[in-house]
Amino acid sequence: MNMHATALAHPNIAFIKFWGLADEARRIPANNSLSMNIGCLATKTSVTFDPALKADVLTLNDELVSGDGLARVQRFMDRIRHMAEKDLYAHITSTNNFPIGAGLASSAAGFAALTLAGTVALGLSLSEKALSALARFGSGSACRSIPGGFVEWVVDPLTGETYAQSIAPADHWELVDCIAILNQDHKPVGSEMGMRSAASSPLQAARVADAKRRFSRCRTAILSRDFAALSQITELDSNLMHAVMMTSNPPLYYWRPGSLAIMQAVKAWQAEGLPVTFTLDAGPNVHLITTRASVDEVLHRLRQFPEVIDIRSGIPAGPARLLEQDSPSRTVQV
Amino acid sequence: MNMHATALAHPNIAFIKFWGLADEARRIPANNSLSMNIGCLATKTSVTFDPALKADVLTLNDELVSGDGLARVQRFMDRIRHMAEKDLYAHITSTNNFPIGAGLASSAAGFAALTLAGTVALGLSLSEKALSALARFGSGSACRSIPGGFVEWVVDPLTGETYAQSIAPADHWELVDCIAILNQDHKPVGSEMGMRSAASSPLQAARVADAKRRFSRCRTAILSRDFAALSQITELDSNLMHAVMMTSNPPLYYWRPGSLAIMQAVKAWQAEGLPVTFTLDAGPNVHLITTRASVDEVLHRLRQFPEVIDIRSGIPAGPARLLEQDSPSRTVQV
Repeated sequence: MNMHATALAHPNIAFIKFWGLADEARRIPANNSLSMNIGCLATKTSVTFDPALKADVLTLNDELVSGDGLARVQRFMDRIRHMAEKDLYAHITSTNNFPIGAGLASSAAGFAALTLAGTVALGLSLSEKALSALARFGSGSACRSIPGGFVEWVVDPLTGETYAQSIAPADHWELVDCIAILNQDHKPVGSEMGMRSAASSPLQAARVADAKRRFSRCRTAILSRDFAALSQITELDSNLMHAVMMTSNPPLYYWRPGSLAIMQAVKAWQAEGLPVTFTLDAGPNVHLITTRASVDEVLHRLRQFPEVIDIRSGIPAGPARLLEQDSPSRTVQV
Repeated sequence: MNMHATALAHPNIAFIKFWGLADEARRIPANNSLSMNIGCLATKTSVTFDPALKADVLTLNDELVSGDGLARVQRFMDRIRHMAEKDLYAHITSTNNFPIGAGLASSAAGFAALTLAGTVALGLSLSEKALSALARFGSGSACRSIPGGFVEWVVDPLTGETYAQSIAPADHWELVDCIAILNQDHKPVGSEMGMRSAASSPLQAARVADAKRRFSRCRTAILSRDFAALSQITELDSNLMHAVMMTSNPPLYYWRPGSLAIMQAVKAWQAEGLPVTFTLDAGPNVHLITTRASVDEVLHRLRQFPEVIDIRSGIPAGPARLLEQDSPSRTVQV
């Protein structure tokens, strides 16, 4: 019997951001968040358990990983082993179709694919909800890359359970995410590390206190395909997160001058009537969300910025999915 | 009997910012603020009351002013007329040794000089405290340009009175404000207008709630000449104000890409051990506060930025002062 599976997952871009944990040990987010999976980017992860191994071995884009990166994945694999009650280690091979460490949410896609491949390879058959709840222990936003299309990550106020679920499928709204990739002359603090300082900002409590209102407005904007409403709340939410970052102790500056130049250009383009909005994760890249009809115009304009070294554009994508399986698993619900 | 006076005042740069009013009609600020007068910049204002005039006439840097700019000054002059119980109008001539509308707090210096010259010309003899309390009706931060050196603008919690007063004279600490003047390709919203939207930010209440702590820490840092403490609190306070601006409805973006480039360079310079910190008012210019010993190095580094079109540097300056007087005023306390 082999214990092998391969899964694919997409990164996601959040309209309502996750930044800060209400409970670090239980990985309960400070606020609910909302995102869209990004079609042009994907991570493929294979997991093969091997009784001969004494520890997990991780290969990322054909390079053997050691140190903190490996330890983080091993701790996550321990959770899967614990759930399956099996004491086996695995060869884990992950490849991205995009550069890692460029702020393209590689850890979200990576841990989503690993959650699916790892559990299936070890014979577990988890629901989408359970997969999502598990994925957050690898990387918070990874839980949003398990379901498809437009996704909410919620905390059940009664049970305290937290997981992500789809609010609309990928084909619900023909949006396009045009990602302006900027040069990173210094490696920013990773988001998992950075958000530990969120509570040191005098603004984090106010950001969180207002999150329910933003979440509700954004959810309605997505369900009713209201681009103007989505724009307003998406930019506000992105600015709120970066406001917390820049007022944390020590302050975290993820925006680069080129990021701000694009953000301000977007404001001018909106004034011209172009349907486009921006949002930034914990990095300098600017995600420009636009409609199918306007994507060529947005891409053309983005290419004028000397700071932009690459552009990727993707439509809303489906859920994490199994590509191959050769394991003792029964029905796999994904 | 002539009714004429000329006064000079300096702009000020705030370490703890004023942004938003708790009471708009009474011009009570949402939080106490702290600033330093800037020696290299000055506004000189002459006021000559003339019984033949039917309305105030304003000349700013040799140009006749009309419209909103004139109306704002006329409304302020009405207050002085009301205090003096005189129904006379004036020729007002104001000149700056710096470009107006470049975000160099020209309205603070202008209204401080106008307060002093206007009251003296009409025969009023106001204390520094009363002059300061009056100046805020022209422009909030103008009240901080009345006293000298390092200045606090406070609200008396018992009486509700609000005015600025010196906490240390200009020679208390040999700081230098190196102002990197950036090109303004669009005219930003003026601060008096912009701060009306402060309460629309989900962050303003949190910024204000934390202001007492910042004010106290900044005051102590100034009095004890603790540059590291001043740096930390000054940058935090500047970022807090701009966080509110960028999350207001509509959002206000005063930072330009070049502003952010300089801010981030300052963080790198600090890591090298250079004593320098930054703060930005409602505009793109970056005020780099440094020590006498490091000013040449800071100026040299600032000149490397292509976005910087001009640099001014000034030491802490004294109070608003009378340059000439030919009026019925008795003792003038300035």
